[in-house]
Amino acid sequence: MTAAAPSLMQAEAMQAPAVAARLLAAEAPAFAALGARWRAEPPAALLTVARGSSDHAAQYFGYLAMARLGRLVTSLPPSVLTLYRARLQERGLWAIAFSQSGRSPDLVLPLQDLGARGAHTLALVNAADSPLAAAAQQHIALHAGAERSVAATKSFIAQLVAAAALVAAWQQDAAFSAALQALPQALQAAAAADWRAAIEPLRGAERLYVIGRGTGLAVAMEAALKLKEVCGIQAEAFSGAELRHGPIALVEPGFAVLVLAPPGPAQAGLLELAQALRGQGARVLLAAPAGTPGAELPLATSEHADLDPICVAQSFYPLAEALARARGLDPDQPRHLHKVTLTR
Amino acid sequence: MTAAAPSLMQAEAMQAPAVAARLLAAEAPAFAALGARWRAEPPAALLTVARGSSDHAAQYFGYLAMARLGRLVTSLPPSVLTLYRARLQERGLWAIAFSQSGRSPDLVLPLQDLGARGAHTLALVNAADSPLAAAAQQHIALHAGAERSVAATKSFIAQLVAAAALVAAWQQDAAFSAALQALPQALQAAAAADWRAAIEPLRGAERLYVIGRGTGLAVAMEAALKLKEVCGIQAEAFSGAELRHGPIALVEPGFAVLVLAPPGPAQAGLLELAQALRGQGARVLLAAPAGTPGAELPLATSEHADLDPICVAQSFYPLAEALARARGLDPDQPRHLHKVTLTR
Repeated sequence: MTAAAPSLMQAEAMQAPAVAARLLAAEAPAFAALGARWRAEPPAALLTVARGSSDHAAQYFGYLAMARLGRLVTSLPPSVLTLYRARLQERGLWAIAFSQSGRSPDLVLPLQDLGARGAHTLALVNAADSPLAAAAQQHIALHAGAERSVAATKSFIAQLVAAAALVAAWQQDAAFSAALQALPQALQAAAAADWRAAIEPLRGAERLYVIGRGTGLAVAMEAALKLKEVCGIQAEAFSGAELRHGPIALVEPGFAVLVLAPPGPAQAGLLELAQALRGQGARVLLAAPAGTPGAELPLATSEHADLDPICVAQSFYPLAEALARARGLDPDQPRHLHKVTLTR
Repeated sequence: MTAAAPSLMQAEAMQAPAVAARLLAAEAPAFAALGARWRAEPPAALLTVARGSSDHAAQYFGYLAMARLGRLVTSLPPSVLTLYRARLQERGLWAIAFSQSGRSPDLVLPLQDLGARGAHTLALVNAADSPLAAAAQQHIALHAGAERSVAATKSFIAQLVAAAALVAAWQQDAAFSAALQALPQALQAAAAADWRAAIEPLRGAERLYVIGRGTGLAVAMEAALKLKEVCGIQAEAFSGAELRHGPIALVEPGFAVLVLAPPGPAQAGLLELAQALRGQGARVLLAAPAGTPGAELPLATSEHADLDPICVAQSFYPLAEALARARGLDPDQPRHLHKVTLTR
């Protein structure tokens, strides 16, 4: 799926498997230390703070922590602190920021504020010399290297890997930890998956739903955002259940729906939904492991279902890049966007 | 804005101010008792569980509890329990379900499960004889009466009022509590606000962003969902800050953006954003108090900024209903939807 002159987005997405390997190796001691600390002294509460793609990685962390560890995680709207000036209950709280540039004030200020009041603060950030890294009591670098494409790819995948590594180090589930160590190889296979079958159906699409569920919903959200940024499609993500509580009203014959159905407890419902939507005339593009009835977009999988959403992201990015070019757009030049966004 | 033959949606939306008054009067003892209990024995953790419109009311509760009380609230994806079978940390946990029909298994099962394991469970539900009310250790009825329109209106506003009443009873802030008691009158004024200026610009729209922030974001989410359900517009809600982290890439000349800017800490940024989007050629429809520069949709306000989003919802519904009819649709017959949706 490479062009004659590959875009930055494509080139950087292809670096993600190596980034994942580098991150897991370099930060293994940091993850282990945090896991040991959390087992010895469990957080009284956990919150994440993030924007854009990084917030999708934070959602993945939150879902994993709830599903695998039974720990509630709150997604903090930064404005609670930056605009409403709330005083949260800081005792025993861990605040975890996810960021690529580490420069947006609506991440830096909350971490400074919470840390000064007694919370524990941690930043997962690609730019290790950033204001966010300085504001947090501790930070873990993502090791994605310089990312020049406006649309984040390898740094997002690194954030998902870091999220999984935090949960693995905390939980010490042998199967999950082993699968995480083997993930870089699985990502290599995922990067080579051929999703070009989606290009023609989406070449002229203006509207789209992206459906996921469970640990996979965060990647559906990321896919929807990327389709907005680089393809100009108003793509919106929903869980397979939430879709039925209202948004399905838009699904008319020909309406495009990308269903992301990796293995796991949510898969059966997503496959049923894909079939039902096809029955309503929707143009369903189903991503599922090769051999799944009705699957057009083959999913390479990892050794653990809870990590498969990371493979989904890895297979999706080349499609988004190629689709942008098929629509006559430059994937490296999304409208109105810059690499670093500063909001309060 | 009433038609010759008024729709159920319009008729029911107009009942909301009376519903709010009835709810506040009838459930005053229940709210006071809960507030006293939470002050005496603060929840160790709070989560909400809800779907569709009801989940937007849950978001409003969560934001208010964080901003006004400093209490973290987690929005629980039901699948964490229904599909992933997680065991949450139940000690001292309060689980609050928001629902209209009280019948969806993905609300009933989590409340049963959490309650059986030691959590406190509370349902805010319109159907007081529903499985959800029976599953919860206690429930508060919304007093919206029978709602026959598929698109919920008065029951959603009742949920917002109940959310505010819970926070008011817990916090005992005199100004906020007094403003809440006066809210039904403010809603009467809001119901009469004339937002017809939005009909022509949106008559042919297929895509739309709805922008809010802070306590108002939940109502932007609700507006976006209603525009999907009854108008067939792919409307998507973002916070004013989140928009800049990616979704703004879709904003080309003529792209429609509904900006909901009631008073409060988030208003200034929203007004700046509206102006910036107009500068980019977007077709901005700005809802703000009469006299605000650039406002086309007049907002009636309450006596407290944190309650103004409820007035926004009240003023928005007649627009959604009239816009549906202007687009040749029957607001009482959204495609594919039924009054009660059962998901797991």
